Amino acid sequence: MADDARRTVFFISDRTGITAETLGHSLMTQFDLDYEQVTLPFVDNVERAAKVVEQINHINNNGGPRPVIFSTVIQDDVRQVLKDCNAAFFDFFDTFISPMEAELGTLSSHAVGRSHGVGNRQTYDVRIDAINFSLNHDDGLTTHHYSDADIILVGVSRTGKTPVCLYLALQYGVFAANYPLTEDDLMETRLPKVLQAHRNKLFGLSIEADRLQSIRQERRPNSRYASLAQCQMEVMRAETLFKREKLPFVNSTTVSIEEIATTVIHERSLKRRVH
Amino acid sequence: MADDARRTVFFISDRTGITAETLGHSLMTQFDLDYEQVTLPFVDNVERAAKVVEQINHINNNGGPRPVIFSTVIQDDVRQVLKDCNAAFFDFFDTFISPMEAELGTLSSHAVGRSHGVGNRQTYDVRIDAINFSLNHDDGLTTHHYSDADIILVGVSRTGKTPVCLYLALQYGVFAANYPLTEDDLMETRLPKVLQAHRNKLFGLSIEADRLQSIRQERRPNSRYASLAQCQMEVMRAETLFKREKLPFVNSTTVSIEEIATTVIHERSLKRRVH
Repeated sequence: MADDARRTVFFISDRTGITAETLGHSLMTQFDLDYEQVTLPFVDNVERAAKVVEQINHINNNGGPRPVIFSTVIQDDVRQVLKDCNAAFFDFFDTFISPMEAELGTLSSHAVGRSHGVGNRQTYDVRIDAINFSLNHDDGLTTHHYSDADIILVGVSRTGKTPVCLYLALQYGVFAANYPLTEDDLMETRLPKVLQAHRNKLFGLSIEADRLQSIRQERRPNSRYASLAQCQMEVMRAETLFKREKLPFVNSTTVSIEEIATTVIHERSLKRRVH
Repeated sequence: MADDARRTVFFISDRTGITAETLGHSLMTQFDLDYEQVTLPFVDNVERAAKVVEQINHINNNGGPRPVIFSTVIQDDVRQVLKDCNAAFFDFFDTFISPMEAELGTLSSHAVGRSHGVGNRQTYDVRIDAINFSLNHDDGLTTHHYSDADIILVGVSRTGKTPVCLYLALQYGVFAANYPLTEDDLMETRLPKVLQAHRNKLFGLSIEADRLQSIRQERRPNSRYASLAQCQMEVMRAETLFKREKLPFVNSTTVSIEEIATTVIHERSLKRRVH
């Protein structure tokens, strides 16, 4: 039974758990293993740590495989308690902080929870402004503030423009608008007038036609909009337009929101307002 | 000059750079150091790696302090080239992969770029559905699908409800609506009717009155809406309501979007659809 059972992987943090998860996920994807994930945020005192130890050791006593822990806990007393876990313990701060102190020639603060703290107010305001810009300029809603945009995503309906814009805003403070290519735009096979003055800010999104069909089918079942023929035509014409106008574009079918966003920043050399 | 100059910290990745940045930021926040940040994503072949080495060694030759590198590069040949940098090199994969291989009893794939890849299609679809839900239920726009919501954020205008909802959707696939408390709601000091059936899904956002004033002032300068008296009254009444109705709430003034989102998930024991 023990061999068949899945590993439980714990992500433990004294704050949000975001760093612990990012770290652990990245490493676990290198192994072809199916595992159970448990995130334990806000483990910021020894009492809560003791409960966590109990929870984890309980799994172990039941004969399952040894749990794995990725920890970003900073407080020394809390970390000390967690080390009583009968588990493989990958301690992020313990591993890196000492060599960093040596390199930087200064002691670390051992202070909790700065990495996803509010940071400075200016950064917060920039993110909010970028989100508002993105919401106001979603789906071609308004096009008259395009001069304020850092980037304008272009593509046919349902290629994933909105989530990429929102990710750019939230994560990087980038002002991202998006413009849906209409059937009229596609028939002309040239850039809509409203985009022509902003050629350097354009970035195309494309998608496989059959994937587009299944997305549209969910929204408007059995419509012309969702037919394979329509999707094929739109995708083909959009890509022809991108190539003719020499616009960079990516196919979003097999690429994540994160990857598209970072590709856009990289290829258009965008200045991030949030680091 | 060398002593006064700021360190340059590089985040190098063969994919998006998100993991490298998250880790590096977490560690650097432990040190009270001002530094220059350079993210170098998509370093996925030896030619590009050689250029990176040149770029980094150039900084060093100019007599500045030794650069710091946080790397999540997985490909062995690319990593090998990067090690020629004259820099403090914190190699994330090198550090953890060997002990993980020993613990898990299996070799890692050394395959690039899985951690922010598209994952499975189902995960992608959940994120998109959650974003659409959030956009459709922003700012009390519609209230009749609240039974489908995982959480409903409640607060006066401009407490940061929208970014938290979007973050919950993008990062965790959580269906998050938000409802702005109107002056009428506040005068009654009781839950609006439309929320009463969903009491277990409510989470309050509050804010310092002077911070709220400065945010509102940006949007509608010198309006009653942006006056300190109005902000104080609204915040006070909203908090009274939260307490009376025993709703959990946080003050968003000094807490980041990420922290509010993870707090909401933690306190309301929300099931994440994306891990």
